[in-house]
Formats: sequence, C-alpha cells, structure tokens
Amino acid sequence: MVETRNPLNIGAAARAMANFGFSRLRVVNPYDVAFREARSAVGAAPLLRAAESFASVADAVADCSLVVGTTSVGHRELQHPIRRLEYGAKLIGRHLASAPVGLLFGSEKFGLSNDDLSHCHWLMRIPTVDADLSMNLGQAVALCLYELARDPKAAAARPEKIRAAGAAENEQVTLMLLDALRESGYINPVTAASTEEKVRRLVRRLDIAQRDAPVLLGMLRQILWKLR
Amino acid sequence: MVETRNPLNIGAAARAMANFGFSRLRVVNPYDVAFREARSAVGAAPLLRAAESFASVADAVADCSLVVGTTSVGHRELQHPIRRLEYGAKLIGRHLASAPVGLLFGSEKFGLSNDDLSHCHWLMRIPTVDADLSMNLGQAVALCLYELARDPKAAAARPEKIRAAGAAENEQVTLMLLDALRESGYINPVTAASTEEKVRRLVRRLDIAQRDAPVLLGMLRQILWKLR
Repeated sequence: MVETRNPLNIGAAARAMANFGFSRLRVVNPYDVAFREARSAVGAAPLLRAAESFASVADAVADCSLVVGTTSVGHRELQHPIRRLEYGAKLIGRHLASAPVGLLFGSEKFGLSNDDLSHCHWLMRIPTVDADLSMNLGQAVALCLYELARDPKAAAARPEKIRAAGAAENEQVTLMLLDALRESGYINPVTAASTEEKVRRLVRRLDIAQRDAPVLLGMLRQILWKLR
Repeated sequence: MVETRNPLNIGAAARAMANFGFSRLRVVNPYDVAFREARSAVGAAPLLRAAESFASVADAVADCSLVVGTTSVGHRELQHPIRRLEYGAKLIGRHLASAPVGLLFGSEKFGLSNDDLSHCHWLMRIPTVDADLSMNLGQAVALCLYELARDPKAAAARPEKIRAAGAAENEQVTLMLLDALRESGYINPVTAASTEEKVRRLVRRLDIAQRDAPVLLGMLRQILWKLR
C-alpha cells in the first residue's frame, strides 16, 4: 500500500488479507499517523502488527519477481499492459506457485504515481461499470484478494440438494389438503373433480422437501380435526 | 442492509453498488444517525440519496421473488441451505434475468438474526479461510456485487499480447551488445566464442518487445560511441 492516508483502509486491507489467507502487508510512506492508528486499533490483527514499512516502492518489492500495479485507469495514458482482475489474478496465481508477487495499491486520492507504476511488470484493473468512478481502497484490496483465493470449481459445484418429498408423501399432503378444503366448504361439488386435479398439481409445484412433508401433514391434521 | 450501525458501511455499500451497476439500496431499521450521516456525506451518490428505509425485513423484500441472506456462518446452527458465493451468485444471476432478488446483509456486530433469516430462501457465504473471522461489512457487500457482475469469460480471455521483437532485431541487439562488451574489455579472447553464444541466449531470454528494440539499440550505440 503506497502512501495510504486513511488508517481505516490499512486496517481493512489487513482484515481482507486475514480473510483470504495472505500474510505479508507492506506499506510505503504511509501517513505516519495513519499507520500508527491502524496498528493500535482494537482487534488489530497480528498481521497488521507485523506489517513492514518502507521508504520506497523499490525497497518494498525488492524480493518480488513479479510486481503488479492496480489501477482504476481513469484518464491517464498508461504505458503498461492492463489486465482485468479475472485474468490477472489467474496469472498471479500461477506465478505465486513458484515466487513472491508484489501487488501495489496507490493512495486513496491519486492512486499509483507514474514513478510507482514504472516498478510494475503490468497492471490490473477491477472491472467496474464506470472506469471514472474509482473504488474504495479497502474494497479494492478485498476484491483482488478474493479473486486470487477464488475457486473456479466452486461455481460449478452443485451443493447437496435438499431431498424432495416422494410421490407418496406429496399425495398424502394432497389428500389431506383436499379433506380440509372439503370440510371448510372450499370445494364446489359441481367442479370437485377439476378442483382435485388443480390441488394435486399445485402441491407438486410447491416442491415440498421430504423433511417438510410430515410438518405440513401435522398442520393439516390439526386443522382438519378442528374443522370436524 | 439490516440494522447497519456505521454510516461508512452504508456509504461503502452504495459505492460498490455504483461500481458494479446495481441501483436499489434498501435499509431496514438503520441507526437513524448512521443513515442520515451516510446520506449527507460529501460525494454521496444519487444512489444513496434514493435509498429507501423500511421498518421490517418483510416490507423491504416484499417485491422480491428470491431472498438470499449473507452469513459468515460462525457458530450458529443454520437451518437453510448455504451456498458459496461463486455458486450462489450464479443462481442469483439466473433469477435476476426474470425477477427481482433481495440480498440481505446483517449488522456489523451480529449479522442477520434468526428472524431475518427466516425470510430467506437460502444463504450465501463468502469463502474466507477462517469462518470465525467475519468480514468487514462494506467489503462483504463489494465482494457479493463483484461476483454477481463478474464475467467468467474474462478469466480465459487472453488480452492482446505485446508484440515480441523479431529474430533480426534480437540479433541486432546481440551484435551491438557484443561490440560494446568487446570495446569495454569484458570479453576474454580465449573464451570469446562461448561468451558470444551466452550473450545471444541471454538476449533471447529477455523477451524484448518489438517497440523496445530500437530504444535498446540507441542506448548501446551511444555507449559504443563513447567507448570508442
């Protein structure tokens, strides 16, 4: 984090790092007060207390074999390749398997300077709908780390489905509901046959869970008892 | 956002919504001061000024045909299906194509209550490494909206590659570098042949961009001129 002004943003970055399993926070020229405040905040993670402070970007990234800058693009002419977060994070992930990567975030107001950017191999941008509307710094850090930790397989993985009630259970509910409707006078004897079919279809559309079937039967049984 | 206490979090949520193209912010029972402060903050987006306030979750989600709660899980026994953000966002995306979806966020301290949760069809969790360490509210909102707006194809799309220098340009650089090395006395005449091969291989490994080749040649030409 380069020249961060707001201690809340340093704290938010540290929290997001803990959330997604990253541990080395480095700050370059932070506003001293901001850094001290962030460190001394109640509940400041050990990660924040272990944060290292550097006087220059060059020193901060010295041991990184890949340095990636973050940018909201905006109006500046940028000389670097710019990759969208989805793709950039994939490249960083591959690189991380073998060597340390530095991910740079600029100040809240000005982002990374051209001098900061010249230390980067390439830049990464978060795909917001309006490039002119910059992101909140703490949120931007969280998004980058989330994308790095994100599991593409999890998007496809279908979680255990709730077991649906079987046909017999659905029919039990249907019959008891019909009993209750008959007792309550809801069913017109002339159209009783078609009403029965409608109720049967409606019960199937409810897609009742197996574990809910006995609960519904219990409710209907009680109502029926009262009706009679 | 249910019972949000910190105005900064309402502001951060509104900003993330603007960043990712969402427009309807609803707050349920916010701390009045928090809501007023967030609205009157400098640069408060029109989105925040248009935020609606409700007295209950039921009222806030009345027009939604799918209601999804967010949770850090933690220690509570939850009765709902819980889906990871990657998968949950996909389901929400499909649903959004045809009907409004409500996404609920609880208070900073307690999350959503069991009563709030009972209005939800299912729950979504952000896959943090440690479920006990809850996320910052503003960051959690940003992550959910980012995942909803995320383009899976962008992860695969290879951006335009920088055009690499051709063999002829690499060889020009190699020869001029060798000239400079000879003039400077770097090359030992006994091992000159093997040094030449080493330099040639090194230049290829540099993977020089086409547009950088003339710059490097200019530098070497100037150095060579000075050496002579």
